[in-house]
Amino acid sequence: MSSGEDDLIARYFKPLATDPGALGLTDDAALLKGGGDDLVVTTDAIVEGVHFLGNDPPDTVAKKALRVNLSDLAAKGATPAGFVLTLALRAADENWLALFARGLGGDAAAFACPLLGGDTVSTPGPLAISITAFGRVPPDGMVKRTSAQPGDRVVVTGTIGDAAMGLALLTGKMTLDDATAREALIGRYRVPQPRVGLAKAVRTYARAAMDVSDGLAGDLAKLCAASGISAVIDAGSVPLSVAARSLIAQGKVGLPGLVSGGDDYEILCAVPEDRLDAFTAAAGEAGVVVTSVGTIIAGNIAPRWLDAEGREVALPRLSYSHF
Amino acid sequence: MSSGEDDLIARYFKPLATDPGALGLTDDAALLKGGGDDLVVTTDAIVEGVHFLGNDPPDTVAKKALRVNLSDLAAKGATPAGFVLTLALRAADENWLALFARGLGGDAAAFACPLLGGDTVSTPGPLAISITAFGRVPPDGMVKRTSAQPGDRVVVTGTIGDAAMGLALLTGKMTLDDATAREALIGRYRVPQPRVGLAKAVRTYARAAMDVSDGLAGDLAKLCAASGISAVIDAGSVPLSVAARSLIAQGKVGLPGLVSGGDDYEILCAVPEDRLDAFTAAAGEAGVVVTSVGTIIAGNIAPRWLDAEGREVALPRLSYSHF
Repeated sequence: MSSGEDDLIARYFKPLATDPGALGLTDDAALLKGGGDDLVVTTDAIVEGVHFLGNDPPDTVAKKALRVNLSDLAAKGATPAGFVLTLALRAADENWLALFARGLGGDAAAFACPLLGGDTVSTPGPLAISITAFGRVPPDGMVKRTSAQPGDRVVVTGTIGDAAMGLALLTGKMTLDDATAREALIGRYRVPQPRVGLAKAVRTYARAAMDVSDGLAGDLAKLCAASGISAVIDAGSVPLSVAARSLIAQGKVGLPGLVSGGDDYEILCAVPEDRLDAFTAAAGEAGVVVTSVGTIIAGNIAPRWLDAEGREVALPRLSYSHF
Repeated sequence: MSSGEDDLIARYFKPLATDPGALGLTDDAALLKGGGDDLVVTTDAIVEGVHFLGNDPPDTVAKKALRVNLSDLAAKGATPAGFVLTLALRAADENWLALFARGLGGDAAAFACPLLGGDTVSTPGPLAISITAFGRVPPDGMVKRTSAQPGDRVVVTGTIGDAAMGLALLTGKMTLDDATAREALIGRYRVPQPRVGLAKAVRTYARAAMDVSDGLAGDLAKLCAASGISAVIDAGSVPLSVAARSLIAQGKVGLPGLVSGGDDYEILCAVPEDRLDAFTAAAGEAGVVVTSVGTIIAGNIAPRWLDAEGREVALPRLSYSHF
């Protein structure tokens, strides 16, 4: 009586649907109690051959699909509340699904973001995973892109450019002898580290924020345009990993390549000067390093990137675009 | 400075994002105010070559993508509150996008279900559209699948099987000389009529409900299994369109083909006997014909379909399954 589709949902995804709002995945819809909060909604899809590689381990594909959404929620200051999943599969490959579901379930538990529902469809094309995730903020607590003000410090979390280098290594566009560094960079590409633990600090201290997913330079330009302001960036202060510094030293990449590469999933925010110390301390408690890389200024021009001598750094490309 | 992806969002989708919660599509996330309601969340994807045909008009593809979700909301008794869209495109075909956006915008306005956000990605494969839609119900007002009780009448809206015949006509698996009937059936396949206007009546009078998307027989079996009950159906009372009756008379299809075909997007519900008249009247006011086709009974066996002589109707296939 039950179909293959229902069987695979029951086998692989029902065990993940522990939240009462998921209704055991037996219904057409899930239930989200408002509970006085504002709900923040974000949706991001990843496609085989575009956002992940066909031979990426299934558990890392699942984690990436969820984490790119968790990154958006964190940047908005929102605490995860749950997600729905659309999975477009060529065939019901049991091994792949078992590993995918294990990865997804592990992350859903680790980030307290339960699976609430979904849709599984067949496709003759590449595997695609679309997730819509929900987060909660107190009323009017969502941190927007549009509210940066002149004088705010431009702050980024973690390190920039690692994932783009990881992809270059995976696709053979770059080589690196140091196996540990290589694995670290590939790990950044395959399994982003969304800054979920920073949500409350972002909500408390940042005036505007977004996640860095398409390249720091392009995403900063978007934040500035949305806020109707500009920025001056000290290019030398952009936080880089040891591996990225080593690649620069070997002449394999320059700063422009690192700040225009995608998949960082760090948070970029505008923090008022007088809240910077408190934000840095709160981030430290959450285990996240934050770095001030510049200042928001008035104006409508594109953000300027300056080197230590105050010279303009040329950025031929700002970010990744699908079209 | 802006990318092709941002350009196409600004050109085609920003005009649709009139709701304040959409933040003009300038942010990574949308905002849904709880407002004391429960939020009902549903997600459904449609894939070219699977749920729609590559040469289907783009505006009908958009309408179908949204309407399959609106149908789920209506069956849950929920009033539409908005939706987010994931669009996986091979290329940014301006003509296609303009027509798609026009169809989507028309429906978003017609059904008062505004676009709140989305993600546009490139794919080397077939076009795919995933929508997550939100609806509101009063606290604990969502109508579930799991709550049918013995003695409830089994009620369906509209007519059954038309869309499956429309697909058979479109794909050349069936022929029909009557051009008007042909267009009507194809229209049912391409542009479902979600019973949005029936949401309040469903919420007020139905004990359990779901939308009929994979075939009435299979979906009824799912509702029964979820509620832990069974049903007896009077096969002759299943509501059929004039076109479907004509196809039966011509020997081109039988009832089993009609009740196992997908894409009806009608509502199937269990209504207590003493509320049936009130439900029928409320549906009539909403312009929807509802038909009682059987009765919920105790037991765990599959629903029984009986003909006018009380003989079992054989249903070789209950519904469409992707795998």
